[in-house]
This record gives sequence, structure tokens and C-alpha cells, in this order.
Amino acid sequence: MRIVKFYEILAEVEAMIESNDDLKLHTYLENMHAADISEILENLDEADQIYLFGLLSDELATEVLEELNSEDFSSLLHALTYEKKVAVLDLMSQDEIVDKLSDLPENRQKEIIAFLDFEDAEDVKELLVYEDSTAGRLMTKDFVSIQKNYTIYYAIETLRAIAPDAETIYYVYVTDDQERLVGVISLRELIVSAPNRTVSSVMNENLITVHVDDDQEEVAQIVSKYDLLAVPVVDSEGILQGIITVDDVLDIIEEEATEDFYKFAGSSDEEAYEHDTTLKVRVFASIRSRLPWLIVTIFGGLLSASVLAYFEKTISANASLALFMPLLAGMGGNVGTQSSTITVRNIATHEIEGTGIFKTLIHEISVGLIVGIVCALIVAVAAIIMETEYHIAIIVGISMWANMSTAATIGTIVPLVFKKIGVDPAVASAPFITTTIDLTGLSIYFTLATIMLAGL
Amino acid sequence: MRIVKFYEILAEVEAMIESNDDLKLHTYLENMHAADISEILENLDEADQIYLFGLLSDELATEVLEELNSEDFSSLLHALTYEKKVAVLDLMSQDEIVDKLSDLPENRQKEIIAFLDFEDAEDVKELLVYEDSTAGRLMTKDFVSIQKNYTIYYAIETLRAIAPDAETIYYVYVTDDQERLVGVISLRELIVSAPNRTVSSVMNENLITVHVDDDQEEVAQIVSKYDLLAVPVVDSEGILQGIITVDDVLDIIEEEATEDFYKFAGSSDEEAYEHDTTLKVRVFASIRSRLPWLIVTIFGGLLSASVLAYFEKTISANASLALFMPLLAGMGGNVGTQSSTITVRNIATHEIEGTGIFKTLIHEISVGLIVGIVCALIVAVAAIIMETEYHIAIIVGISMWANMSTAATIGTIVPLVFKKIGVDPAVASAPFITTTIDLTGLSIYFTLATIMLAGL
Repeated sequence: MRIVKFYEILAEVEAMIESNDDLKLHTYLENMHAADISEILENLDEADQIYLFGLLSDELATEVLEELNSEDFSSLLHALTYEKKVAVLDLMSQDEIVDKLSDLPENRQKEIIAFLDFEDAEDVKELLVYEDSTAGRLMTKDFVSIQKNYTIYYAIETLRAIAPDAETIYYVYVTDDQERLVGVISLRELIVSAPNRTVSSVMNENLITVHVDDDQEEVAQIVSKYDLLAVPVVDSEGILQGIITVDDVLDIIEEEATEDFYKFAGSSDEEAYEHDTTLKVRVFASIRSRLPWLIVTIFGGLLSASVLAYFEKTISANASLALFMPLLAGMGGNVGTQSSTITVRNIATHEIEGTGIFKTLIHEISVGLIVGIVCALIVAVAAIIMETEYHIAIIVGISMWANMSTAATIGTIVPLVFKKIGVDPAVASAPFITTTIDLTGLSIYFTLATIMLAGL
Repeated sequence: MRIVKFYEILAEVEAMIESNDDLKLHTYLENMHAADISEILENLDEADQIYLFGLLSDELATEVLEELNSEDFSSLLHALTYEKKVAVLDLMSQDEIVDKLSDLPENRQKEIIAFLDFEDAEDVKELLVYEDSTAGRLMTKDFVSIQKNYTIYYAIETLRAIAPDAETIYYVYVTDDQERLVGVISLRELIVSAPNRTVSSVMNENLITVHVDDDQEEVAQIVSKYDLLAVPVVDSEGILQGIITVDDVLDIIEEEATEDFYKFAGSSDEEAYEHDTTLKVRVFASIRSRLPWLIVTIFGGLLSASVLAYFEKTISANASLALFMPLLAGMGGNVGTQSSTITVRNIATHEIEGTGIFKTLIHEISVGLIVGIVCALIVAVAAIIMETEYHIAIIVGISMWANMSTAATIGTIVPLVFKKIGVDPAVASAPFITTTIDLTGLSIYFTLATIMLAGL
């Protein structure tokens, strides 16, 4: 289902809800994908949500619950009968349950865990102990593992038995008698191997693993780099604790890219924006996250004002100097943003390591110097055409060039330095860079102007 | 292998190259993952690259080639013997060959295709006909398909035979006698189904497909939304032409996020940056991509200068007004960037559709109005502390509030309008927003100042 068609389908579903045609609606929904049904649910009011959800088979209802955000998950689950609650939670995958519970208050977590069977409840409680955004919190315990001395035949039989519950059966993990992870076999290899061989003679021992405490971003990079469908998660003793599958990694990568964007705009913690329901809550979440950066910018701006106060006489005597301040600041800011964005992104995608640092710096400074000259000439000519005095045009041109070269340098160095001293370059760079570029740019401009105009 | 350990391993490999210890190096490399070996190769000079590459088994050499960029791929392949070239290209997956060839000149493409066996050569030539960044260009023809009237037993046997060549065997596609795609069975379902049933009685007919001409971003969204391991690609007749696997989708998502970042910084086409070898080529690629946005900014700045020219007398008489120009511009720019970044990102992740547009607008304007008041008060108090005259402090405060509210509104509306008229909001928004905010902010400030100061 394409996005363009979504509103047509939503309208059709709403019409069927209106006419209470249960059977037709049930058949219609059973032919849809859970991801689409969840999108439709998000566009309905609560009464219609509950009505529509009640028409789904247990399997489809479970898949739909997995796709919903924590809040809708919680409210829809609440509306179900006891039997249906137990049924859908039993079908739901562990990592999805943990993901939903993560965002709910503790008393609601306990209520929901009470509907799980004993084994799942224990697993979920264990997973909730791990820190948010770590491998431990993301993993599922529904993986397939076999002993290394099994035969391939017996391994496939085991797999047939476990398959309905497991998150993925495409990798089968091999453990020793102490449950330490020693190897992996893909389902593909199992299928093509002779049934009487032992697992240990066929398994791949060059395992890529992550640790329960690893950050989700690191997990995503590993899965992406090694083209894995799932990655095993081990503890410090090398015991297999769970697996993380590629579908979760896709979500992480999208989430991290969005987070980087938000950080870059100086609003680092705006997840509340998406999930909370009332406008008031969302607006105040945004204000809380954005205001700190704006206050930093205020102090930067006040610093610029104090610097400019030194040049008040020059400005008063040559008011036309003030006309070009926005132009200079805008160009410096633009060049600085270009350099810093590319540096921050290269840091995030690990393209800057070792000699890469030096290469990036040389690159950005060269670009700054050259675009600086081109822009300086354009601006000087434009200033003359606008009938500005010649010496002002010259001052503006020279300042433009110096300003843009410095801006490119600052835009590249600041994120690198922040990275070095352990500060997140995406968060801290923007206000710091803008302020520094403004200060240096204005100082260059008015110092040059004061000297040159005093000489006249 | 973690990133922190990379330089240790590189040093070890370099030492082994130095001492020409072929056997030790061969054993060492055979225990590494191809993705790691390719990273090491990228850090060696060409002679060492060729030496090290020659020590790899055909299988590992192939995997390493798949990980390299087009240029290194081409030069390393060139250095191989005829037999080895044929061997590794035969092992390499089709979509990877097409991906490498895409970035090479046509004569080099033909040279490499000449080493492929007839069937692969035909497939690769066919895939190269599709537009860059479409599903057709990304897909592989090495998929597993079976006829719908096969038994499960026969299907598994077919799979065993095809498995070594196929890109993935986890989805088996089902076609009718005209090769039209009619269903899919996962390997999991095949394994757990009774061997004597027919494929058509077990297959899933609710297929999610993409079209050969679909954009890669759309493909990525579909795979991510429906949690697929692979998506089948069909032509207009519904005939199965290929499949795209999740590992390629991971690459697309990362590539698109990077592209969005670059666009946002006003440097839309900087892929050359990563792959080209000489500094000069890379620097000029960056200049070409960034200069247009800078020139747009120049015209914006000159427009601001013309507007300010109207207020030259006011500035000349009250030079202290000029001190607060960078502060006002900086705050407007910051608020505008925050609003526009979030709007652009929400558009990119399809969170803004229908009623979402209105909700986003209300949200951003509310945030702008409230942070505007807070910042206006801080700035007015600071101005008084800095011993600015009272009436200037009042003018600055009021302008700050008006400026920030307008900036939030402009920052939200511009990307939405650009999206509506079919212009990429990520590319065009930044310079347009900055200029508009500068112009409105300065006009508000100096108009207010002229009126208030004239009244004194």
C-alpha cells in the first residue's frame, strides 16, 4: 500500500465502521498488513479503535499491537477481555513487549506483565533491567540455540519444534555445555549440509557478537557493516543472552538519524513531540529542549554587542558599514554550517579517523579560501553598483574573504575538538560555532574598517 | 572488531606485509570478516593492496571486492590473473557487480562484463539499463522462484539445488505458468509444512511488491515498514524481475540520511567528496555543490543591505541600535532552523500528512511565541544591565519577540509550501528561510526604532 492510497483506504474503513458491517470489515482487514492497520488505527478515535481492533483475529491483533506506539498499545490492550489479553501477549514477541513497556509507568508495566506466562514474564523483567538504548534492552530471548554435538538432522528437528516461537530461525546459535556461545549456522547451511554430520563440524566459529551493555547505535553499525540478519548478544562470561534482528536495526538507524537532525537544530530531546497526545504537553517538551540553546545564543549575541560597542564611533560616523553586517554574518554562518554539517556527519558515519582528520581539515579550509575569494569579488562589485563608497566596498570584500575562510576553519575544527574531548559534536557545535563565527567576523570587519577609515 | 581496535589490527597487518610472512598473513586474514579486510585495504597503498589481496581465497576475495568502492574494486580486479578474475566475478552477487559498474566509465563496464559467464552478463546488462537509484538498478536476479503447483517436498529439493547461487533463500517466490508473481513462502513455512502439500495451498498471496521504476527511498520505506528480509520487484505485467534484500536497504537508509544532511547544509551533491582520490578533484566538487547556495545567500544579504539603507539615518543617529543586530539575526536564524529542521525531518519520515500539517504549524507557532517572550525578557534586562538606554532596551525586547515568532512561522511554512509545489524542502529551505527571516527581522526592528525614536 502506497502512501498516496492511504487516505482512500482510511475513508473506506471509516465508511464500513459507520455502517457497522462487521463481516465485511473483518474480511477487509484480514487481507491487510498489520503495519497498515496500525496506521489506520492511529487516525481513529478511541471508540472506533476498540471496535475495529475487536474484529481482528488473535494473530493479526498481535501484529497490530506490535506496530503501535506505547500509549495506543496500552489503551487498546486495556480494552480487551482477559482471555484475549493473555492470547495476544502470548503471541507477541518479547522484544516488542519490552519496547512498549519501556515507555509506560511502572505500575502499568506490572499490570501487563501479570498477563504473561511465567517464562515470558521472567524474561521480560530481566530485559527491563538493562539500560534504555542498550543491546540488552533491545534483544529478544526467543532465539534458537543448539548444542555443538548435535547432528544436523537433530538440529533441523529441534528447529521445527522451536520455529513457531522464535523471532528468527535463519541463524541457529551453537553453545557448549556451559551455554557459552561458540558458533553459528545459518538455516541455509543446515539445509544444504549432510544430515549425519555434527553441528560443530559445520558451524562458523568466526562469530560477530555484541555485549549486553553496548549502545544501540554500535549494534546498528555492526549489523549494517557485516550485513547480518541478526546479531547475538552475550554477557561478560560469553553466555548467549539474546539476539537482535535486522528489523529492529532498521528502526534504530532511522531513529538515530532523526535524533542527529534534532540535535543539529539545537533541540536534542524531542521524542515527546511524537508520542504525547495533548498539544500543551508537546509544546512544553519542545520549549524545554530548545530553550537552552537559544539562551546560549543570547549570550553569544550579547558578547557580539559588547564587541561592537567598541566600534560605536566608527559605526556612527559610517552608518553604511552597518548595512553589510547581515550579509557578512549570513555568509559566515552559511559556510560554517556547511563545513560543520559535513564534519559532524563524517564523524557520525565514522568516515573521520586517523589521517582522515587532517584530510578533512585541509579540504574544508581549501574550499573556504576559494569560495571566499569568489564571494568577496561578487560582493565588492555589487557594493559598488549599489553606489556604496569605494573604500567601504573594499573593506566589505576583504572582510568577506577573511570571514568565510575563518568560518570554514572554525566549522571544521569545533566538531573535531568536541569529539576529542568527549562532547557530542552534533549537540554542542551549532550554537558555539555560530557565536564564534559572528564574533570573529565582526571583529575582522570593524577592525579593518576602523584602521582603513582612520587612514583616510 | 570494534572501531577502537581497528588501528591496532591495521598496524599488525602492516608489520606482516613488511616482513613478507605470506602464510601467517593468509591465516590471519582468513579469520577476518571481509568488511574488516576491505577497511584495511582502503588504508594501504596500491602495491600492498595487490599483494594482500593476492593472499585471499577466492571466496574471501569476492566478499572483499563486494565491500570496496567502485574505484578500488576496479583497480584490484584489474591486477588479477584471467582465471582469478573469472572466478571471483562468478562468485560475486549480481546486484553488487551492477552497483560497482554503475560508477565506472562505459568502456571499463564492458571490459568487466566480458569476464562474466553468458547468463550473468545478460542479467547485468539488463540491470544496468534501469535508472540510477531505482528498484530495477538495485535488485538482483539471483532469487529463488518455484511454480505454484510444486509440492513442498519438491520445493525444498529445488531450493537445495539453487541455494548456493541465490542471494537469499529465506523467501521463495511463487509464480504461475506465465512467470507472474502470485505468492511467497518463507523458508520457515516450507520447513514446518507437510511435504506432500502443494505450494499454492501454503503460500501467502498478500504480497508486498515494488515496481522496477520505484525510487530506492520508497523501496527502503516499504522494507522497513513491513519488516521484510527482501522485497520482490515486478514489472508492469506483474512478472517477477528481481529481489532487493534488507542489507541493501540498510545501505540506502544510511545513504539517504547522509544526503539529507548534505542537502540541509546547502551542498546537495557531494558524493564525489568520498570516493575521488585527489584533493583537487574533491575540493572542486565541494565548491561546485556549495557555491550556488552561497550566491543565493549573497543576494539575500544584498537585499537586507538595501532595506537597511532606508534606515541609514536612524542608525547614524543611534549607533547603539547596530550593536543588537547580530543578536536579533542570530536568534531569528536559530528559531527558524529549529522549526524548519523538524518540519523537513517530519516530511522526510512521512510524519506530516493531512491533519498533521495543521498540527505542526500550531505547535511550532506556539513554541515560537512562548520562547520569544522568555528570550525578549532576558535580552531587555541584559540590555539595561549593559547600560543601554531604556528605550533601546524596550525596542530590542519587542523586536526580539516579534522576530522569533515570525521566524518560527516562516521556518515551518516554507518547507511545507516547497513540498506542496514539488520542490525538495531539504535543499531549498535553508537559504530561503535565512534570507526571509533576516529581512522581516531587520524591518521589524528598524521600523519600530524609527517610529519610537521619532516620537521622543
